[in-house]
Amino acid sequence: MTEKIVLDCDPGHDDAIALLLAHGDPRIELLAVTTVVGNQTLDKVTRNALSVATLAGITGVPFAAGADRPLLREIAVAADIHGETGLDGPELPAPAFAAVDTHAVDLIVETVLAHEPGTVTLVPTGGLTNIALAARRAPEIVGRVKRVVLMGGGVAVGNRTPVAEFNIAIDPEAAAIVFEAGWEVVMVGLDLTHQALAGPEVRRAIRAVGTGPARFVDELLDFFAATYRDVQGFDAPPVHDPCAVAHVIDPTIVRALPMPIVVETAGRHTTGMTVADRRGPAPQGCRTHAALELDHTRFWELVVDALRTIGDPATPAATVPADAAALAATEQIA
Amino acid sequence: MTEKIVLDCDPGHDDAIALLLAHGDPRIELLAVTTVVGNQTLDKVTRNALSVATLAGITGVPFAAGADRPLLREIAVAADIHGETGLDGPELPAPAFAAVDTHAVDLIVETVLAHEPGTVTLVPTGGLTNIALAARRAPEIVGRVKRVVLMGGGVAVGNRTPVAEFNIAIDPEAAAIVFEAGWEVVMVGLDLTHQALAGPEVRRAIRAVGTGPARFVDELLDFFAATYRDVQGFDAPPVHDPCAVAHVIDPTIVRALPMPIVVETAGRHTTGMTVADRRGPAPQGCRTHAALELDHTRFWELVVDALRTIGDPATPAATVPADAAALAATEQIA
Amino acid sequence: MTEKIVLDCDPGHDDAIALLLAHGDPRIELLAVTTVVGNQTLDKVTRNALSVATLAGITGVPFAAGADRPLLREIAVAADIHGETGLDGPELPAPAFAAVDTHAVDLIVETVLAHEPGTVTLVPTGGLTNIALAARRAPEIVGRVKRVVLMGGGVAVGNRTPVAEFNIAIDPEAAAIVFEAGWEVVMVGLDLTHQALAGPEVRRAIRAVGTGPARFVDELLDFFAATYRDVQGFDAPPVHDPCAVAHVIDPTIVRALPMPIVVETAGRHTTGMTVADRRGPAPQGCRTHAALELDHTRFWELVVDALRTIGDPATPAATVPADAAALAATEQIA
Amino acid sequence: MTEKIVLDCDPGHDDAIALLLAHGDPRIELLAVTTVVGNQTLDKVTRNALSVATLAGITGVPFAAGADRPLLREIAVAADIHGETGLDGPELPAPAFAAVDTHAVDLIVETVLAHEPGTVTLVPTGGLTNIALAARRAPEIVGRVKRVVLMGGGVAVGNRTPVAEFNIAIDPEAAAIVFEAGWEVVMVGLDLTHQALAGPEVRRAIRAVGTGPARFVDELLDFFAATYRDVQGFDAPPVHDPCAVAHVIDPTIVRALPMPIVVETAGRHTTGMTVADRRGPAPQGCRTHAALELDHTRFWELVVDALRTIGDPATPAATVPADAAALAATEQIA
Repeated sequence: MTEKIVLDCDPGHDDAIALLLAHGDPRIELLAVTTVVGNQTLDKVTRNALSVATLAGITGVPFAAGADRPLLREIAVAADIHGETGLDGPELPAPAFAAVDTHAVDLIVETVLAHEPGTVTLVPTGGLTNIALAARRAPEIVGRVKRVVLMGGGVAVGNRTPVAEFNIAIDPEAAAIVFEAGWEVVMVGLDLTHQALAGPEVRRAIRAVGTGPARFVDELLDFFAATYRDVQGFDAPPVHDPCAVAHVIDPTIVRALPMPIVVETAGRHTTGMTVADRRGPAPQGCRTHAALELDHTRFWELVVDALRTIGDPATPAATVPADAAALAATEQIA
Repeated sequence: MTEKIVLDCDPGHDDAIALLLAHGDPRIELLAVTTVVGNQTLDKVTRNALSVATLAGITGVPFAAGADRPLLREIAVAADIHGETGLDGPELPAPAFAAVDTHAVDLIVETVLAHEPGTVTLVPTGGLTNIALAARRAPEIVGRVKRVVLMGGGVAVGNRTPVAEFNIAIDPEAAAIVFEAGWEVVMVGLDLTHQALAGPEVRRAIRAVGTGPARFVDELLDFFAATYRDVQGFDAPPVHDPCAVAHVIDPTIVRALPMPIVVETAGRHTTGMTVADRRGPAPQGCRTHAALELDHTRFWELVVDALRTIGDPATPAATVPADAAALAATEQIA
Repeated sequence: MTEKIVLDCDPGHDDAIALLLAHGDPRIELLAVTTVVGNQTLDKVTRNALSVATLAGITGVPFAAGADRPLLREIAVAADIHGETGLDGPELPAPAFAAVDTHAVDLIVETVLAHEPGTVTLVPTGGLTNIALAARRAPEIVGRVKRVVLMGGGVAVGNRTPVAEFNIAIDPEAAAIVFEAGWEVVMVGLDLTHQALAGPEVRRAIRAVGTGPARFVDELLDFFAATYRDVQGFDAPPVHDPCAVAHVIDPTIVRALPMPIVVETAGRHTTGMTVADRRGPAPQGCRTHAALELDHTRFWELVVDALRTIGDPATPAATVPADAAALAATEQIA
Repeated sequence: MTEKIVLDCDPGHDDAIALLLAHGDPRIELLAVTTVVGNQTLDKVTRNALSVATLAGITGVPFAAGADRPLLREIAVAADIHGETGLDGPELPAPAFAAVDTHAVDLIVETVLAHEPGTVTLVPTGGLTNIALAARRAPEIVGRVKRVVLMGGGVAVGNRTPVAEFNIAIDPEAAAIVFEAGWEVVMVGLDLTHQALAGPEVRRAIRAVGTGPARFVDELLDFFAATYRDVQGFDAPPVHDPCAVAHVIDPTIVRALPMPIVVETAGRHTTGMTVADRRGPAPQGCRTHAALELDHTRFWELVVDALRTIGDPATPAATVPADAAALAATEQIA
């Protein structure tokens, strides 16, 4: 059985890889892709999402643009990590298709309501503005969503500030809404994603796939490795966003524990912190979880397998019927 | 020329009177009525709005229910002032029609986009959750709305706390979004509305109208006068919400001055305060205004005139087709 | 009967006038003068206090320097209003005597404990750091002090920010300690002091005194008038600090009402605000008061009378025995 | 060479053991003991300190009582952990001597100024109210103190709240003052002290000492073990305060790393958190340190050795002149 997901993202190098993983892994059914201001402005991340979809031969999935600014705070992008385009490094194809006219928030709501209760997982890998707006605009989805598996936050580590992670820090009020909405939330935070390093062996395995999308990922990682080394002193870049998708695929690869988590919105030094209570066992019925342990080998196998599955979509997806490309890809795997 | 408005309300005794004023005054074109949690829960205030519309013969105007809770804070209703139903006191007719299926936020957005830019005024008289969600979900409306004329806040006076007014205090984050969105905001706050007292002379004038809706207003004011006397020590009740409608009808009756206003969301003693800067003349291009001076006589004349215009809509709308009732009302006026 | 006071100040143009008023008015017994960082750095305001004392022939009163920084916040002086020296404008004599070795906090505590309970009034006219430290270091003084009559804050007006006055804003935590300590506090804030304008008639009356100290005050007001005109747009300068001394001299000149007042320390827009609750009558036993009404004529008469009483202390106080100077001054009055 | 310390404490079970360690270890010269509200009210913790000193034969060291409440917050004691007396469990002797008349803050200041610059270490094991008041009342000590080695806070763990430790949480403003004063601060926090468990082997070693003070410690640990088991679910109690003393004795037993640390005072969920920046190497000249690694075996050897050194002070100090008791204790050691 596949897991139905809506990917809400701000590509972003690791968002791009998350999208490829979601597209390539057979256990994921990608219902929709929505974008949100974050790593770069809404226009840029939306174009990036469409270009990556084009490159990877993703068809038949609606893409929609969402919030162009956080709920209360000023826009703060991550050009130091992702460059001016939000996806600096590789050459990107022009998008072969456009975003739908629907707003991301509406697409999220419609998608959830169009499927059986308890079947759709939201996977946000950017700021939580779209998800928060959806939860407040259409509270009936809160009880219908299966889970929210998000990349963001951290139990004992920050990057934007000593204790706040970027995705939470850029819209802490939205994050507070999402963590406290009452649905099940799995926080795949920095504790976990700082284990998902793309070291030399990983890089070799990706290059060995030998396809266009694999080369694209390799070039993404070149750029990402350089900024993470220069800005945060990492030997190899932590590839955050696909970890959230991996948890949906197989929770034994990205292991999470229940614990109460709330979001600080008013601190002098702590705004944007995900405050987890680890002082004892989680109370009965605790709906928030933190991912703490990664199976590094199996995680990267997921990514490499997805790239193999995607194969080499016939050049410009635009010139090839979508289904044919998908078929071709499937045959390559077999 | 008439002023097109969307009334976003949480009836509420004074909301009901605001609705009657908006309906009865010929200079207002009521495009839509939306409801929001506030004085009571969403279900109750929505039912109240429909009942008041029924009683007053309002037809052809879509009513839509909106947010059932504030953005971040817990729900906090004003049962001490408005009673358990939100409109305690008078007997209310059962609603003769239902709210539309559209969500208030969507109805606000659609209504603004359906009219010429610069022609629609939003008139919120409850918490600002719906308006904030609309501004963030559809930022394109911010440049299209003519103005936001809201009842809420105050320059130098509070009621919920020493410095915060109820409508702002129940959703300060929403208020911060609305005040800082960039559109023109007129704050009709407690400085103004505490001048809009329904004293004995006002009460006599209303009773003299002699219609069902006038009797209804009289009964509303009986209850309202009692709670305001008991809870806040007022001799006569301040009738807040119609003041915002009155400003739209005639800004010489409710006079406003430009001044920078922001909303406090993080204070220990000041959360929900509308912080106005009166230290000097407003800067060029200041988009926020505070209403400070009321022409008490002309204000109440507006209300009484509106009641006269409304007249006595043919008996219980419930027993009469809505359009017929509307027709009857129109004929009576003429 | 005279009122015993400790003046805790940061001269500061209006502090200097407050000191002259406290010295010159026969109803005040000045027990000690302490200084605190505020309008300028501690070194500067302490030197200023000593110079003013020298010029005015104040002898036999201990002067002590206190806190050189706020409790938690960074130092923020008011050079825009008081100039680089803290007392720009007039020529100042070199101090004829030095501050005592005791720290201001200790001098305040010792002075309070050396007199009968209920007889010593603290009159802070700067930030409240010294007073807060004294209250926490020696809580036994809280029950012994007669009252704290402070210049600072405001009910509905700010200057440092839209809602915070300078003396409170520079050390809001200290202010919170002082307002909530349990002793009687009279807040002589901007509501009151913005009525204490030194207009042309006041200026003429001061000049008519014709003494050195009066000329000094005149020159102070020249400078103060200019900065208040340029920075805050005042036609005539509000002379804040002597209003607190005037309240001690005669509470019918500076009239105060009881009302609950607390200090905001955590707001985004409101930190340093004195939050007064005017929603109803003050509760029984309310220990905080706000001065709201000034008798402008009688207030300035107090100041002019004090200048007359001070007269012309024989040049360099240093060259004349202190008691002789005092005697001379007394004779001049008679 | 010995380390001169002032122990500022709120006994408290682990404070008592810290006092015994400081007294018994030959590398520590105990200059003064000061008390502060914390685990219990000031009266109780002061009496406890004197009783422990009596029991352990501590003489010739001044004890002084200090702050009876936090700077801004309400008093919040830890009766759940330390019982109603603050030292529930063992029978305590009546104090054989009294606290000096000097206030703790003054004694701290005098002691620091009476010794060579850079020779006195402050060792607070309670809330930081006294130390903060000393730093603000006498800023000249900040440059003279060798270091502040405090028990409190934590890098990634709290007890009072999910992220705040008790000693910091009860007076966060005081903690902010101490951490940001500019002197060297070593934070011996929960990361470290949760390693200092008094398990069965430790308990046996203590009992084996066979003296009165060792029996007293054993009884303290009986009570402490029970409350820590019941309230926080610990198998064996973490004995926090002596870890700070141990760091002063031998920093290879309690190992600390430099890292920027600030204290949150304004958070909704994080007030009282010590916010440490571990995102990279500490900047040059970083003056704050966090203790992270404990040598458990050597730590408990220190405690046991100190108990052996203390031996059995001649029966009830109350019945024996203080100096005689001290002499006896000294002879026993030799």
